[in-house]
Amino acid sequence: MSKLIKGGGTRHFAQDDVVAGNGLLHRRALLGRGLVMAGAAGVGFGAGTTGAGAEPLKEPEWSRYQGTTVEPIGRRTKYEKNTVRTLSNPNGEPRTQHARAPLHMLNGTITPSHLHFTILHNGIPDIDPDQHKFVIHGMVKNPKVFTMDKLMRYPMVTRQTFVECGGNSSPMFSKEPVQANLQQLHGLVSNSEWTGVLLSTLLEEVGVDPKAVWMIAEGADTAAITRSIPLKKALDDAILVMYQNGERLMAEQGFPLRLLLPGWEGNMNIKYIRRLKITDQPAMTYYEERNYSPVLPDYKAYRFYFINEVKSFITHPSFGAKLDGPGYYEISGIAYSGTGRIERVLVSADGGKSWADAAVQGPTMHKAFTRFHIPWRWDGQPAVITSRAIDDGGNVQPLRADFVKARGETMEPIKNTLAFYSQHYNSLTSWGINAKGEISHVYV
Amino acid sequence: MSKLIKGGGTRHFAQDDVVAGNGLLHRRALLGRGLVMAGAAGVGFGAGTTGAGAEPLKEPEWSRYQGTTVEPIGRRTKYEKNTVRTLSNPNGEPRTQHARAPLHMLNGTITPSHLHFTILHNGIPDIDPDQHKFVIHGMVKNPKVFTMDKLMRYPMVTRQTFVECGGNSSPMFSKEPVQANLQQLHGLVSNSEWTGVLLSTLLEEVGVDPKAVWMIAEGADTAAITRSIPLKKALDDAILVMYQNGERLMAEQGFPLRLLLPGWEGNMNIKYIRRLKITDQPAMTYYEERNYSPVLPDYKAYRFYFINEVKSFITHPSFGAKLDGPGYYEISGIAYSGTGRIERVLVSADGGKSWADAAVQGPTMHKAFTRFHIPWRWDGQPAVITSRAIDDGGNVQPLRADFVKARGETMEPIKNTLAFYSQHYNSLTSWGINAKGEISHVYV
Repeated sequence: MSKLIKGGGTRHFAQDDVVAGNGLLHRRALLGRGLVMAGAAGVGFGAGTTGAGAEPLKEPEWSRYQGTTVEPIGRRTKYEKNTVRTLSNPNGEPRTQHARAPLHMLNGTITPSHLHFTILHNGIPDIDPDQHKFVIHGMVKNPKVFTMDKLMRYPMVTRQTFVECGGNSSPMFSKEPVQANLQQLHGLVSNSEWTGVLLSTLLEEVGVDPKAVWMIAEGADTAAITRSIPLKKALDDAILVMYQNGERLMAEQGFPLRLLLPGWEGNMNIKYIRRLKITDQPAMTYYEERNYSPVLPDYKAYRFYFINEVKSFITHPSFGAKLDGPGYYEISGIAYSGTGRIERVLVSADGGKSWADAAVQGPTMHKAFTRFHIPWRWDGQPAVITSRAIDDGGNVQPLRADFVKARGETMEPIKNTLAFYSQHYNSLTSWGINAKGEISHVYV
Repeated sequence: MSKLIKGGGTRHFAQDDVVAGNGLLHRRALLGRGLVMAGAAGVGFGAGTTGAGAEPLKEPEWSRYQGTTVEPIGRRTKYEKNTVRTLSNPNGEPRTQHARAPLHMLNGTITPSHLHFTILHNGIPDIDPDQHKFVIHGMVKNPKVFTMDKLMRYPMVTRQTFVECGGNSSPMFSKEPVQANLQQLHGLVSNSEWTGVLLSTLLEEVGVDPKAVWMIAEGADTAAITRSIPLKKALDDAILVMYQNGERLMAEQGFPLRLLLPGWEGNMNIKYIRRLKITDQPAMTYYEERNYSPVLPDYKAYRFYFINEVKSFITHPSFGAKLDGPGYYEISGIAYSGTGRIERVLVSADGGKSWADAAVQGPTMHKAFTRFHIPWRWDGQPAVITSRAIDDGGNVQPLRADFVKARGETMEPIKNTLAFYSQHYNSLTSWGINAKGEISHVYV
């Protein structure tokens, strides 16, 4: 059916598999098509020795002795010692601590809980679940205090969703591309399976005053993070979470109880939640009045900016990796949208001149990481790879020129203010590859 | 729309929400229906204090001091110290080691990698991924050795699937119900998100002889577990896995490379895979000739029994928990099928006399854990709860009487043999609840 290009080896490569400039192939080109890629050096994936030398393999050292003992909690292998979070405040000085997820080292869609990003303003509290109480009060018919034991009896739901800090990707506001890996650029986003009680279930029980439109959520940690949240979000898909990736929350993720607002900026997903006050107006707390009200180039500011909009970036290959010579590679990355399901991801290998549809790994879930893949034949010449996601609401990840025009481009304090452009970057991330296969961060 | 039953409190409870005997309610009865459950002690979920006393909450101790420091790898909270695996051989004596997953303490569908069950026959090998080699040889055109570096360049896929030991649930063959929790009864099954290269991609590359029908897979650990696998499974959905739940495999799960055969017994999912020999006949290794060929009551035996068939059990409430008085509870559990997607789960609260459809948490995935939920109003009288799953192929979890008739019922060695009935139990698991709310393991 396809016209085969005969190359320097045994590969069978269909010309009409080329779907965009500079070697991007159809997303199914390397799957189930009987493609033979190896044999010719620098053409296939270069997959090792062929022919009679393949067997016998040399007997490895580790096949000869009893291994180590299985423990009650499994341990990571020492060979993965660099797959860890990076810390902004490793000595726990009395200020904010950020732990960034090593997105460039991970694959699939789940972020393991111990590598999930976190931000804490006064360290990790040690909360006794038997003593923790959660109250719903304010404009309700029956204000109520819930213990964890009682909450555990309510109907639960499970869903996968990402959580992203509103300040994630702030280096992308730099005029010149910051030379840093994904962890440093975008490491304040992660994706988990969460289980808990729909907040709407409890709100029905307490009986919300029809005149109420906001709720003020407060954490039990020393920072007592407090945010105002439109009540309609609570009635839509907010969850009081007890479990992350199957087990109870880690202390640094809000044990024993956190608020999850799928697709809304991380800071609003109040950890250690202890109070929820139903009101008819927002509280205008520090975290919404000063810290999370993005300033715009015309000196206006968003009063609230809740949603993490449609976004994507390529994780493989990315900054810090090096391509091992010309040939076939898989370009793969993560896409997500705070308003819905990822429908398409476009990838370019020529810096945005042409685009092709990547394969989107199913099942795609609302407001959750979605992995995309596309095969690429690198010819050894300089190239720029980038991605652009589209969600099921038709929202398209903006091009950088458009984003910058609307939202600013400087890492300096904005003239005559104490504010920075540092929030809700959702434009492209692009990797420049030179003839040696080295990868730099570039803008297109 | 529904006729309300006026009870001893403020609850609004529709009579036509009753869907089966002994208090099982419609799966959506407690969601989005404006149900008010609290107020009357012993009627609602009993959710704490009402009225004016709800606020202010007492200021807790942990709100007053700087917490602990965030680390590169997150730690579990000390309050979850009992949520660990149980070990059959904690001192690592030179025999098999089993680690059972604490399914009764988990929720959602993902099993965290560090709590995923594992079985190792010679401990955990310490394999250097830079030295590990994987060979495909035998009846192929181009035998090939793959290094990990090369394998990492191939197109990858991500999917959730369970892995279950063929010997899981062996206590269920006992004539009398063994009084034990889920971890002890069924802890050799777990569910993860796995990422790797489809084996079919590599088989296309090496060029399989059309006369080949089997493959022999061998691990690199000292036990060198070896199993014969029909080639058609490889071409269907077998994956060479590098990542589990987002990060590289743990050593005890097969780092750096394991074979995943979705829905087929755990032992065949060869960890540390180093050789795959393509053949026209099975090898009849120890693990298929002696250990995994289930014997039947008529002294015949299955030569092979690959598939973990449709199965379910209730995790909440389950053995070890205690109901805190009459009122509403959620019954929740796990269902899965090695042949497809879970379509329905039926739950009974009267020992199998009547059944109702539980809510099945979506998105349901092929050969993956699926959580089910149903609300239940316990009247404080003795009750027996149990579940029964049905997959999209119409396979129904067998009733115990039928299962036992076909497959045997004794924990003793089978008369005149050295064999045990101990494999592939997929019949019901039932919990008896007495008037004190205590839970025992019963047969129905």
